[in-house]
Amino acid sequence: MLKLYYAPATCALASHIALAEAGADYTTEKLDFKINQQNSPEYLEINPKGRVPSLVTDRGVLTETPAMLAYIAQTHPEAKLAPLDDAFAFAQVQSINSYLCSTVHVAHAHKMRGKRWATEETSFADMKRKVPETMGACFALIEHRMLKGPWVMGEQYTVCDPYLYTIATWLEGDGVEMAKLPKVADHFKRMAERPAVKKVLAEQAA
Amino acid sequence: MLKLYYAPATCALASHIALAEAGADYTTEKLDFKINQQNSPEYLEINPKGRVPSLVTDRGVLTETPAMLAYIAQTHPEAKLAPLDDAFAFAQVQSINSYLCSTVHVAHAHKMRGKRWATEETSFADMKRKVPETMGACFALIEHRMLKGPWVMGEQYTVCDPYLYTIATWLEGDGVEMAKLPKVADHFKRMAERPAVKKVLAEQAA
Repeated sequence: MLKLYYAPATCALASHIALAEAGADYTTEKLDFKINQQNSPEYLEINPKGRVPSLVTDRGVLTETPAMLAYIAQTHPEAKLAPLDDAFAFAQVQSINSYLCSTVHVAHAHKMRGKRWATEETSFADMKRKVPETMGACFALIEHRMLKGPWVMGEQYTVCDPYLYTIATWLEGDGVEMAKLPKVADHFKRMAERPAVKKVLAEQAA
Repeated sequence: MLKLYYAPATCALASHIALAEAGADYTTEKLDFKINQQNSPEYLEINPKGRVPSLVTDRGVLTETPAMLAYIAQTHPEAKLAPLDDAFAFAQVQSINSYLCSTVHVAHAHKMRGKRWATEETSFADMKRKVPETMGACFALIEHRMLKGPWVMGEQYTVCDPYLYTIATWLEGDGVEMAKLPKVADHFKRMAERPAVKKVLAEQAA
């Protein structure tokens, strides 16, 4: 049995959807960021980084979305969520997920989490102003060079898809018009129609 | 035959060392950041992100260090650079590398690359001032919660090791005293003694 710690509207949505798509045997626990539950002593025992997601397994805790997504794919091979028998194709999946994690999510984080990297209010405001530009540049690259369509990797749905979808849910709030990104918009619509996505969104909203 | 595009003193060192440790059949091409070669039209054809490293394979180009490291390990299983037959242990390797990429490298990047996320000189200076604190916090977590010793994952040397070593080469410049991190310092010393590391550092300096 797996247990996912998450908070709504965070990148944990990607792993949550992947668990549902995999047909995994899992439970979830919602953290309340409003009362800073991610930094409670209890949660810091699980994940000393004080972030979500965390995935508790029989062997121990896993953190970091790209690692969790690959783990879910590898331990549920029947769900075919990654090209497990092709090291190059698997590396392409990992490359997309690493870019989403280390560049795109980081660009987004400068809107509300500026205090991670600076001290002054003026810097936070400056960072926040630049987010539409940085997220726009990231998604232009995704639109024109990464997203093969209909899914990120082409015909095969993979763990890249819930991760891209999750970050795309932030676009409007980040000041990027999805309508100007037709492939991203089509992908977003396809994702929203998947039963696993509907189920997880309903669960997180409950 | 693999071809690695790199620049000295960048995170490409991790993949370079991994290629040497794997006994891979590879060549390298050095980019000169001083003349902005990473944004030349020729290089942007290879990697539209305008960053290093890039790994050219017979199947196409791979980017993003965690993906490249996993690929090198998976395609050179005899080198035993990752626990390839254990999805949980492999996920732990991926989790460390994802943290190094998306949190630690990003913290470091705020010293010299502030213009990625802000516009004002005052913000760049503010970001730069915070780097010793953020890098110090990252490495405290690595020292106390991640680095098992003697290698990152314990007795087995993996692709986490060249990546941690690479980022640790930046510590002094980032205002973090390695002497106060005994496990990190021991790891750094062990890494510097490895023939593959000596060979790669000599090659990059040539």
